[in-house]
Amino acid sequence: MKSFESLALRYTDGVVSLLDQTLLPHEEKWIDASTLDVMIEAIKSLRVRGAPLIGVAAAFSLAALQRQGFKPDDLLRAGTRLKDARPTAVNLAAAVDRCLATANMETTALQIAVEDVELCDRIANHGFTVVPDSGNVMTICNAGGLATAGVGTALGVFLRAWEKGKRFHVFVPETRPLGQGARLTTWELKRAGIPHTLICDNMVGVTMAKHAIRVAVVGADRIAKNGDFANKIGTYNMSILAKHHGVPFYVAAPYTTFDAKCPTGEQIPIEERPADEVRGAMALKDCAVFNPAFDVAPATLVAGWIMDSGLHRSPGSF
Amino acid sequence: MKSFESLALRYTDGVVSLLDQTLLPHEEKWIDASTLDVMIEAIKSLRVRGAPLIGVAAAFSLAALQRQGFKPDDLLRAGTRLKDARPTAVNLAAAVDRCLATANMETTALQIAVEDVELCDRIANHGFTVVPDSGNVMTICNAGGLATAGVGTALGVFLRAWEKGKRFHVFVPETRPLGQGARLTTWELKRAGIPHTLICDNMVGVTMAKHAIRVAVVGADRIAKNGDFANKIGTYNMSILAKHHGVPFYVAAPYTTFDAKCPTGEQIPIEERPADEVRGAMALKDCAVFNPAFDVAPATLVAGWIMDSGLHRSPGSF
Repeated sequence: MKSFESLALRYTDGVVSLLDQTLLPHEEKWIDASTLDVMIEAIKSLRVRGAPLIGVAAAFSLAALQRQGFKPDDLLRAGTRLKDARPTAVNLAAAVDRCLATANMETTALQIAVEDVELCDRIANHGFTVVPDSGNVMTICNAGGLATAGVGTALGVFLRAWEKGKRFHVFVPETRPLGQGARLTTWELKRAGIPHTLICDNMVGVTMAKHAIRVAVVGADRIAKNGDFANKIGTYNMSILAKHHGVPFYVAAPYTTFDAKCPTGEQIPIEERPADEVRGAMALKDCAVFNPAFDVAPATLVAGWIMDSGLHRSPGSF
Repeated sequence: MKSFESLALRYTDGVVSLLDQTLLPHEEKWIDASTLDVMIEAIKSLRVRGAPLIGVAAAFSLAALQRQGFKPDDLLRAGTRLKDARPTAVNLAAAVDRCLATANMETTALQIAVEDVELCDRIANHGFTVVPDSGNVMTICNAGGLATAGVGTALGVFLRAWEKGKRFHVFVPETRPLGQGARLTTWELKRAGIPHTLICDNMVGVTMAKHAIRVAVVGADRIAKNGDFANKIGTYNMSILAKHHGVPFYVAAPYTTFDAKCPTGEQIPIEERPADEVRGAMALKDCAVFNPAFDVAPATLVAGWIMDSGLHRSPGSF
């Protein structure tokens, strides 16, 4: 039996199941995403999300389709549709291309998944040293077990630090418009027994000023060659606010997030999402909206990159 | 007949009516707030809000109560309850104290209201010069006709600039958790025919970087003697992000917002509001929350104070 299981994804013999993350933290419901249309809808609507995990999910999707009898041309078209579902995270396109280049996609998908578990583990082991033994820390969005096939990237660093006996408190920005902080990071922290406090995104500055944040660790969806990186919208705000308050600001990501073909942050494609996500119930339906799902923070504001290869401190970091 | 009427408050012969701002922009419903309990509930739940307007509303409340036969001791107690309804804006306490010091509270309330109209008008006339003839501008929360008895403070500056023929575009942060930007500022801008775009609060940085914001103008709830000022949560974030992007950051407020007894921003009392405002439908009910309704931005990040007395540029402003 060929199978893999993580916090939010399960694969067994051609069947891909996803924990529907749009329903968390209120309901834990698994959906069958073995068909291409269901998987693409799940990626687009963030039922499955997180740069590493959508790469793994797309790989298992191709594995399932190959078992369903898709021919090479059909798989190529499926791969293109999967890659187009979300443009910013480089992991998705890379995982699809890696599967398409192999004869047995199931074997490759399993390799990608197991490798992501190991990458997360290494990131956590390199990163927990930057977490203080006590006091307050911050992250953004969700970069935990729900965003990867393993323990997570940024949140994995905190989870590992907690396992090692460090006792800190996590401030969690809600991460509008879709609330991955409010819904997912709080869910993971509660599960792990780590104390945390939810804030609105516009409270990041006052929280750094009044609650003595000692370190901020965030994930990444694509890291350019010069170290600029795209991550969930609000990361750029946080990087500037961290600099202003002298808070060391770290990026945790596997090598699969690094895009050597992308010279700087300027070249990273930024997904813009539907206006209604921002309007919600508050604004009128005819109100114009700017809704970039990601922003780009410059390498110059990063204290260090926590990667599977090690902790790379920025030369000019404070 | 003794009467006064503004965008969100009406007073006629002892009857105080409020436009229920919690229902905007979807419904325009007026409520009778002539009794003390209704007025206090309306202030606490932000049916009436905005530093200048809650001062005016409290003054008319005392006028109405005096007409209803409240004795001096009862009026004193009512004044204390009104002042305690919201602690951060100094205008509320100042308006109550000014009424309580006079024999005819209706006359004083009308004076305070008419004076606020004039103060807004002067602020708008001093301030419109900082607005560019074209391009993009930004504000936060709502500091318009819904927040004052007149044309507004920060938003009044933009409304006056538009009247003068300047043609700009306003980026409006939604202002979580209660959405005064998404609900109220968009409503006022639409009414005035001024083009605008709604963003989430975590998009302020990327908007400054990608949409070339040329000026930011915000209101204030209390200005300390050294120029530090409290305003709606997120203002501190915006002041730091404005500095980082070289965006001139102005504060528009009447002298009634200035608190000479408050040496610095450290001494301004900051209201913390219920956790459920932040949790909303997203977070679990047992999730800990930090929900300050205001934050304090330092005088050092302010390019200038737009006040009824004139435009006072900061000595070190960029």
